[in-house]
Amino acid sequence: MSASAQNRGKRLGLAKMLWWRARPDSAPEADGAGSVRKIISLTRSLMSDRGDVAGGPIAADILGLFKTLDQSGRQAFFELLVKDFSPNPDDVGRAADAYRLDPSPAHLRDLQQVVEPPRLELFRRLNMAPEGTRELIEIRRQVLNELETHPQFEQIAADLGHLLASWFNSGFLTLERIDWKSSAVVLEKLIAYEAVHQIHGWADLRRRLEADRRCYAFFHSALPGEPLIFIEVALTRGISERIPPLIDPETPIADPELADAAIFYSITNCQQGLRGVRFGGSLIKQVVEDLKQSLPRIKTYATLSPIPGFRKWLDQQPGHEEIQAMLAQPAAVDRWPETLRQQLLNLCASYLVHAKRTHEPLDSVARFHLKNGARLEQINWMADPSARGIKQSVGLMANYVYELGQLQRNHELYTRSGEVVSSRRVERLARQAIRN
Amino acid sequence: MSASAQNRGKRLGLAKMLWWRARPDSAPEADGAGSVRKIISLTRSLMSDRGDVAGGPIAADILGLFKTLDQSGRQAFFELLVKDFSPNPDDVGRAADAYRLDPSPAHLRDLQQVVEPPRLELFRRLNMAPEGTRELIEIRRQVLNELETHPQFEQIAADLGHLLASWFNSGFLTLERIDWKSSAVVLEKLIAYEAVHQIHGWADLRRRLEADRRCYAFFHSALPGEPLIFIEVALTRGISERIPPLIDPETPIADPELADAAIFYSITNCQQGLRGVRFGGSLIKQVVEDLKQSLPRIKTYATLSPIPGFRKWLDQQPGHEEIQAMLAQPAAVDRWPETLRQQLLNLCASYLVHAKRTHEPLDSVARFHLKNGARLEQINWMADPSARGIKQSVGLMANYVYELGQLQRNHELYTRSGEVVSSRRVERLARQAIRN
Amino acid sequence: MSASAQNRGKRLGLAKMLWWRARPDSAPEADGAGSVRKIISLTRSLMSDRGDVAGGPIAADILGLFKTLDQSGRQAFFELLVKDFSPNPDDVGRAADAYRLDPSPAHLRDLQQVVEPPRLELFRRLNMAPEGTRELIEIRRQVLNELETHPQFEQIAADLGHLLASWFNSGFLTLERIDWKSSAVVLEKLIAYEAVHQIHGWADLRRRLEADRRCYAFFHSALPGEPLIFIEVALTRGISERIPPLIDPETPIADPELADAAIFYSITNCQQGLRGVRFGGSLIKQVVEDLKQSLPRIKTYATLSPIPGFRKWLDQQPGHEEIQAMLAQPAAVDRWPETLRQQLLNLCASYLVHAKRTHEPLDSVARFHLKNGARLEQINWMADPSARGIKQSVGLMANYVYELGQLQRNHELYTRSGEVVSSRRVERLARQAIRN
Amino acid sequence: MSASAQNRGKRLGLAKMLWWRARPDSAPEADGAGSVRKIISLTRSLMSDRGDVAGGPIAADILGLFKTLDQSGRQAFFELLVKDFSPNPDDVGRAADAYRLDPSPAHLRDLQQVVEPPRLELFRRLNMAPEGTRELIEIRRQVLNELETHPQFEQIAADLGHLLASWFNSGFLTLERIDWKSSAVVLEKLIAYEAVHQIHGWADLRRRLEADRRCYAFFHSALPGEPLIFIEVALTRGISERIPPLIDPETPIADPELADAAIFYSITNCQQGLRGVRFGGSLIKQVVEDLKQSLPRIKTYATLSPIPGFRKWLDQQPGHEEIQAMLAQPAAVDRWPETLRQQLLNLCASYLVHAKRTHEPLDSVARFHLKNGARLEQINWMADPSARGIKQSVGLMANYVYELGQLQRNHELYTRSGEVVSSRRVERLARQAIRN
Repeated sequence: MSASAQNRGKRLGLAKMLWWRARPDSAPEADGAGSVRKIISLTRSLMSDRGDVAGGPIAADILGLFKTLDQSGRQAFFELLVKDFSPNPDDVGRAADAYRLDPSPAHLRDLQQVVEPPRLELFRRLNMAPEGTRELIEIRRQVLNELETHPQFEQIAADLGHLLASWFNSGFLTLERIDWKSSAVVLEKLIAYEAVHQIHGWADLRRRLEADRRCYAFFHSALPGEPLIFIEVALTRGISERIPPLIDPETPIADPELADAAIFYSITNCQQGLRGVRFGGSLIKQVVEDLKQSLPRIKTYATLSPIPGFRKWLDQQPGHEEIQAMLAQPAAVDRWPETLRQQLLNLCASYLVHAKRTHEPLDSVARFHLKNGARLEQINWMADPSARGIKQSVGLMANYVYELGQLQRNHELYTRSGEVVSSRRVERLARQAIRN
Repeated sequence: MSASAQNRGKRLGLAKMLWWRARPDSAPEADGAGSVRKIISLTRSLMSDRGDVAGGPIAADILGLFKTLDQSGRQAFFELLVKDFSPNPDDVGRAADAYRLDPSPAHLRDLQQVVEPPRLELFRRLNMAPEGTRELIEIRRQVLNELETHPQFEQIAADLGHLLASWFNSGFLTLERIDWKSSAVVLEKLIAYEAVHQIHGWADLRRRLEADRRCYAFFHSALPGEPLIFIEVALTRGISERIPPLIDPETPIADPELADAAIFYSITNCQQGLRGVRFGGSLIKQVVEDLKQSLPRIKTYATLSPIPGFRKWLDQQPGHEEIQAMLAQPAAVDRWPETLRQQLLNLCASYLVHAKRTHEPLDSVARFHLKNGARLEQINWMADPSARGIKQSVGLMANYVYELGQLQRNHELYTRSGEVVSSRRVERLARQAIRN
Repeated sequence: MSASAQNRGKRLGLAKMLWWRARPDSAPEADGAGSVRKIISLTRSLMSDRGDVAGGPIAADILGLFKTLDQSGRQAFFELLVKDFSPNPDDVGRAADAYRLDPSPAHLRDLQQVVEPPRLELFRRLNMAPEGTRELIEIRRQVLNELETHPQFEQIAADLGHLLASWFNSGFLTLERIDWKSSAVVLEKLIAYEAVHQIHGWADLRRRLEADRRCYAFFHSALPGEPLIFIEVALTRGISERIPPLIDPETPIADPELADAAIFYSITNCQQGLRGVRFGGSLIKQVVEDLKQSLPRIKTYATLSPIPGFRKWLDQQPGHEEIQAMLAQPAAVDRWPETLRQQLLNLCASYLVHAKRTHEPLDSVARFHLKNGARLEQINWMADPSARGIKQSVGLMANYVYELGQLQRNHELYTRSGEVVSSRRVERLARQAIRN
Repeated sequence: MSASAQNRGKRLGLAKMLWWRARPDSAPEADGAGSVRKIISLTRSLMSDRGDVAGGPIAADILGLFKTLDQSGRQAFFELLVKDFSPNPDDVGRAADAYRLDPSPAHLRDLQQVVEPPRLELFRRLNMAPEGTRELIEIRRQVLNELETHPQFEQIAADLGHLLASWFNSGFLTLERIDWKSSAVVLEKLIAYEAVHQIHGWADLRRRLEADRRCYAFFHSALPGEPLIFIEVALTRGISERIPPLIDPETPIADPELADAAIFYSITNCQQGLRGVRFGGSLIKQVVEDLKQSLPRIKTYATLSPIPGFRKWLDQQPGHEEIQAMLAQPAAVDRWPETLRQQLLNLCASYLVHAKRTHEPLDSVARFHLKNGARLEQINWMADPSARGIKQSVGLMANYVYELGQLQRNHELYTRSGEVVSSRRVERLARQAIRN
């Protein structure tokens, strides 16, 4: 082992890797059908007693071969997971019958065993390979991509999602601050993943990590250097009402000690293969806690959030001809008369407060923050003048305020009675919408 | 040192802790019945939609209260886990019937859902508390301790064991070397946990971490500073035939560069609450890999292992009156005549090679190493002269050799045909036993 | 997480070591006179142009040989440093003459060059060896040990001390907290070095690192794992007046959140070879700063300090026959009548406030804290009942208070006018001493 | 202190910073002359007894004020350093006289003291400020920039350089590998500092850190995140003869396991303020050692180096009209006839082997590598076709081979007799040059 490895603080993770590399017959072949056949044979081996003891190398071979597959090869492998690694209906039937006759603990246990899809154990054993977790997330990403044409793969996505949700339990995540001192491996991922307010290269990224900005992410020990979800925060004086100053690389850097508000202006899920595993609510709360301690002068924690469903909803509302006429001229967005502006804000408040699907708000971002216990504070005119912002919400954006002492109460009001907790200001806007 | 410290600086795990501490009503009360009632109410809250979002603080309260319980309080909590958090037989029955009528994927999914004990979800949510994983392992330890008097708690132990086995998948473990530079938090645990060859305080420990010794452990990111299993290795010239020089603190320190053998002389599982979760086989292989790289002159990897079942088996064998006579005088162990010594070695070889329970060797240590693919190499006279060694195995110990290139073949011979792969020397001893 | 390990992985300091080990002819020989001769030849080589480029391996050889020397060998080496590595008087004379004739910058530079002892450059080059700094400190320690019999070595000690003071400039030191998570390598040094209030093994040490205690040390990057000076702190309610509860391993652990005072009860310089290099004052101030931030409820920062010169001074004072009579019976220390106790406290206050050597207090500990800007707050009866405490100061100890806002003012009063800044209480005691 | 700071692994360096910030009167003023006056007053304070104890905050104030100075302010400060912080000629004279009368150790010590410029002590005390070392390096950089117009500042540069050379002794440097996992803070400095073969942004940098490249730097603990000198290495098959494939971001990434040569193609000193402090030779040797261990298949360690003085020398050589004619048409560089090419190579070999200034080679790069003990191996046609390469050396570059076992011998041949150790091939070229 080299000097560098010796110094590597005693973390000897590589040994695992080297062990299987030493095996002479483990070189993956490249051609498609052969690879699938080889994978099938290896999965049998991995599920056997041998896999139980020496699973790591076999798992590594399977994952190595999987990477060489083209789309049809992958589909063949997923078909295998459906056909050969689902519960056996006869076994399930027999166990169900036995339980019906005698609902004893033993029969229950039998039933539990036969209904568990064997692919769960396969996934657990694949995880023993070096980088196994990363590969399983990638496999799920590819399964999700096939769902439209292969709905039967849904069960694979569901089983793997269930397993990953257990493994990525929030008790296993660590919150880390990301700044310009962070590794380039991590930083390049922010550039790649940020979808809400795109990061245009390293200079742009650097501005978002300056003294008056904060960035936090959740990490899992099995995915070093790989953020799962990250949040971007601007430290400002007062609640930000417009997005451009927050993301413009030319905005002068402010003294963070003078800030009294922290504005969460972007949250990004990084791993498509973890779709459906939720981290967001706990992320914001932990970030608020950390900011409270490191910057005690911050008094307000608020988002500056898109309103993704507003325009679509608005187009379905009858009346509002004048507004619709303005919307037909997107270039004229700066020249809205004051009364129409006001009318649009009223309608947006009404949308956020009253528009529902079953019991919950129609707007997905509103659902997320309200469920977390935040309060809808304010709606801002021309807050996002980008083409996308105009298209989604006529440039409007909303602030949701996170007040730690109120989160639990608000959350309960929301979950019990579907109440959208709003500021007086927003309530007034919503009332005016109805009156008009 | 600074680089690591800087990076550690970004791990903000404490925020989680502080958030719930900030809540005014979370101080756990102390009295027994009240605590149990409070726990019950909190578990309901944790399992509700609210727990899904704000689970961490509630989970922390439950675990905090649990720690204040006395034995009867704990039993009451475990009873709750059995009664209120098991699958509902009616639901299971109905879902089984539906599946019998129509074995569709949807019915299967229903069945899967209703047979899963709700306590699994409870455990997953408890894990969201700071130190949640550590507490769940402690809860399982206490459940296991109650099994004798409360066999119905077995299902709790099984469910929690199942969950922990998934979470402690070997893909999530890191192998670390432990030496005198390690934290006292870790080192004191070696002293506390080592059961095979007891460590008598810090001076004794220090000797076991000198230049001619190695110590490795598996760690999990959720249990920092807490070894899960550790292994002690001596670097020697030739295969060690006796344990005393390996554990005597006065043994002179040898130059590790001159060693040609690595002797694994002790493996210790540290967490009672993880009983049944297996790490051992993969530990030895990874350690061999690391030693191969850091000390390329090492040619032989072997254990010096106890033979825990030998004496018990021997006492049940007919004949061997002379041997039995000697055994009746433990103090005379040094004065065995050569022929009797030889006879005892023959019998021991026969025990290890031929004595079986169903298809596997009767000796538990033999089962472990042979299943891993090791070879039974040698049996040593008076290798462990301690009272315990005399009692267990008349002082005999065995060497099992780990030859990387042979592990897979040996493992397959063992699992397919139950063959005990042995050296010629041991085979000869075993043959002589039969002949006699 | 891995990031820390990754970063540690890149510190490749060992390479340096390996390079010189690779050289075939570098094995140091062992016999005494031969070693000295070899060292002499190597020092010449190290001081040559060759040493300038390839100094590391030669330096390593010299230091390796030095370790094999017995006392007479070391003395021979030190003689060499005096004879061959001092400024050349003729050169100095010539350069002085030239400067006298023409005090030009060029002549000054010549003079500067010839008065610098060549051993300074030798020490700088020896520092290029792996562990060079550690060895140079050890060499100085041995030089200091020889001073009594070899006063001519004083110049070596002075030169090396000058160099080390520059290298251990407080800008290069890092303050680190030491607790039970620290490496055993560091912890065992606390046990070994603590001289004021001895640490009796690991259990005793552990108590001193519990939640209601703090320990800090200065480290230098060239001496990893080697504390230079460390300070022990107890978190208490109110100013501690007696040492036993602070160092008794059986003292119950208090909640640090309830403490309002931090008592510095022991400061230990670890490196004899760094004698005369001062770290202490800046250590206390930095520790106070860190405590202020991590434990904002602490209001008082005070020492509980020995009064090492009191008894000696007292014995030289005329009168006080009753006190002298009591002192003659050390065993009766508990049975002092109240009036005598008061009289002794008065005398001690008078000693600390008025007894001087030139302009500074006679008491060395008083000098240290007063120069730092602390205030003499209180003198405590029977604060240190150990044999040593009785012998030094009749069991009395003093509290010095560090009030950050006053340090500078006090320090200036002390340095300008020699004023001993004291509390009213101590001033009153001192006045009573005079009145009596 | 925030959670993140608490986790910062006990490195409490910030305390130092905060202490002085807490002082009410320490806010630096901004106007020029006032700042200089304030600095002068503070330097007096820093040099007093008070500065000895409480130096850190005063030093921080001085350095903070220094940063606010414009050029004339800085010059005024440097004048102060010359006038008020140089040795006092009268004192020097008196001490020289005393020594002449009686060359005793005491008189020598007096002389040593008065010839040491007081600014050395000033610099040592300034180093006690947070970031003090960084600021002192910056001060020296600015002093060096003034030398042309203010030659009298040379003594400041010399004194500070002497001090920094002592502080940056190679025993205090750590070699670290830099790769894409490194902090962006470090990586952006590679882009900024690389002068030989410019790095054009992050994508270009990334290519230079891929699997078939290596980058190492020296760091000092007082300058975290600040490389002092770095070296870029390409892992190749055979000795590289041309620079473009090594620095072209489009060059395909090769498997490092297949490489048999490590080519050092760029060494960059990063800190102008450390000009004259040498790290280079020891850097290459340590890198070779690390590569030897981590990539044992590498057999050849060689540079691909510029020949900066060739063209200038060539232009001064009489004859060679044909060559001079070609050189007059730089665009035609591809169309040199073979004989002229050969002739140019011969001349270049002659230049490197025979052209001297006093005893050393005329070429500065040759001097550096030959002094390190490398061997001049090969001269390559059109190795650097950049405008700069053509201008410096008609596109020629040289390989110097570092053979660990030969370094010492070669170094001695070079320093004793000025011999340029060359390969037979280069020797032949040089002979042909003479013959022609």
